[in-house]
Amino acid sequence: VNDLLLRTLAGANEERAPVWLMRQAGRHLPEYRDLKAKHDFWTLARTPELAAEVTLQPLRRYPLDAAILFQDIMTPLPGMGAPLAFNPGPVMDAPIRDAAAVAALRVPHQDEIAPFVGEAIRLIKPELSVPLIGFAGAPLTVATYLIEGAGSKDYPHARAFFRTNPNEAHALMRTLTDATIGYLNHQIDAGVDAVQLFDSWAGLYPRPLYETFGLPYAREILQAVTDRGVPTLAIAVGAQHLLDAMADLPLSALSVDWRTPLDQARALTQPRVTALQGNLDPTALLAPEDALRREVRTTLRAGLGGPHVFNLGHGMLPAASPERVHALIDEVHRFNRHNPSEHGDSA
Amino acid sequence: VNDLLLRTLAGANEERAPVWLMRQAGRHLPEYRDLKAKHDFWTLARTPELAAEVTLQPLRRYPLDAAILFQDIMTPLPGMGAPLAFNPGPVMDAPIRDAAAVAALRVPHQDEIAPFVGEAIRLIKPELSVPLIGFAGAPLTVATYLIEGAGSKDYPHARAFFRTNPNEAHALMRTLTDATIGYLNHQIDAGVDAVQLFDSWAGLYPRPLYETFGLPYAREILQAVTDRGVPTLAIAVGAQHLLDAMADLPLSALSVDWRTPLDQARALTQPRVTALQGNLDPTALLAPEDALRREVRTTLRAGLGGPHVFNLGHGMLPAASPERVHALIDEVHRFNRHNPSEHGDSA
Repeated sequence: VNDLLLRTLAGANEERAPVWLMRQAGRHLPEYRDLKAKHDFWTLARTPELAAEVTLQPLRRYPLDAAILFQDIMTPLPGMGAPLAFNPGPVMDAPIRDAAAVAALRVPHQDEIAPFVGEAIRLIKPELSVPLIGFAGAPLTVATYLIEGAGSKDYPHARAFFRTNPNEAHALMRTLTDATIGYLNHQIDAGVDAVQLFDSWAGLYPRPLYETFGLPYAREILQAVTDRGVPTLAIAVGAQHLLDAMADLPLSALSVDWRTPLDQARALTQPRVTALQGNLDPTALLAPEDALRREVRTTLRAGLGGPHVFNLGHGMLPAASPERVHALIDEVHRFNRHNPSEHGDSA
Repeated sequence: VNDLLLRTLAGANEERAPVWLMRQAGRHLPEYRDLKAKHDFWTLARTPELAAEVTLQPLRRYPLDAAILFQDIMTPLPGMGAPLAFNPGPVMDAPIRDAAAVAALRVPHQDEIAPFVGEAIRLIKPELSVPLIGFAGAPLTVATYLIEGAGSKDYPHARAFFRTNPNEAHALMRTLTDATIGYLNHQIDAGVDAVQLFDSWAGLYPRPLYETFGLPYAREILQAVTDRGVPTLAIAVGAQHLLDAMADLPLSALSVDWRTPLDQARALTQPRVTALQGNLDPTALLAPEDALRREVRTTLRAGLGGPHVFNLGHGMLPAASPERVHALIDEVHRFNRHNPSEHGDSA
């Protein structure tokens, strides 16, 4: 069993950085596109055998140090009474914009929110020799979708809602937080080895708003996971203005988007955060192989100041080729963090 | 003549913050929507009488301290040999993704890039008792559109291009910089009183890339404007990770997006930047009037550490009501920066 990820998340400064890639399962893989031609996204996500198959696909192809559950951050919403469709992004049947809509959301028993997720985890675990990462959307990000009703460039309704309806907003965050803790406990009971909280849209918000509506609820969830003895990761995108606040979360590792070099992120978050995760620009996988390998080394060098989980700084692009992903992983494998000067260029 | 803006841009800590609003002309105004029902965007922009009319509309309605030219950051592109359509965002006839496409871009004489802009300025100026702000897109942002070919959430082709084709990228930035200096000189010759550089997409890029492909060219343009004796403003969106670098630009005022409170932005950029502009969240205009007024005061208080031009932290939303815009301006007018404690709440 390969426990390099778990040792790194426990704070060990290992010789090699563990590597996994956000959205490693999905559209960049021909074998995923084959399945997707036969089943829609929601069917793949809700059928345990199919969700397990998609989760395992990248592990068969690449020597990765972790698997991540194939689901969407909106997966628990229908079970809470908020139906939605994927076409292709999540679209709510009705946006949630008043007290009645917030009150109509339910917090089911943890095993009744999305029981197919636990079933998928139980199918995946025996097939793996690396840790399985479970995940959930952070309440601020999920609420941003629920209020807007669909994907958007700037989410103006959501941003206005938090300002105009603070009581309803706190009620919504309370419900999402309680349900998310249950949903993650369901994943932990089924066997996930670590949990990542995706606060994808937190970066839209000014820091005072994040500290009021985002941070306290994210902290509660991450503390509940920590109390189960499970390591925690979190990422926000476009959020350098929030990194210093996020450093106060109970995190095994803070995941950083591609905009902020890891050494700068470490300076902003030390000594509260021990390990960092990230943060190769996903578009580096579209570059020629030598340029890609150079950027992988640059990222690895920027991560040397402490424990480092190598990852992308955002989800994999569908246009990334499996050959480049192999080169990325190979370059991480070649890099000796205890003797970094042996690696060619200093770019 | 009201020169409050120009005094503030010269570094004076005036009793009242001058106020104008990004996208103050445009879709939130019923009189603009009436014109737009008769003419498409490109016709409005390219017909001097219509561009002048749209520029002046918000000045007839609101007691603003500046007008800003009604154009698009892509306005100069067709004159450079890169045709595009607006439907509604700019869509290039052909994306620019290789050396031949870069070499095909022309740098016409400054008065031949977009002569209708100078004509519009000459129509606007006699009608104004406030300064007129001209503008251009920063080369990094314009290149991002040119390479991608159209609006996008993440601009993956553009981000990959800078990494993969550094020589072609520098050639593209060189051409855009030369043309932009000419285009702005054309505006200055026609009478604009200040210039804002919009680097709307700079925040997509990690800081090392911004320092290579963004900052040097933006500096050259802003220095050319400064050398004409014209005050300079610049904004990047989602760019807290770049603020410290942008503070090195020759700027009369740095414009800050809604994510970073002005006092924090000042701490990050002092003493290099004297004046700040911004940064009310545009969605505050969708809130009830008392909440809006409270947020305006919060922004004004955060700006007290030095000269402050009041503005939004991003463009006005079409859903903003003129009544709320009036309330915003009224609240800025009531606020005495030399005696801020007289203003009610301390929120």
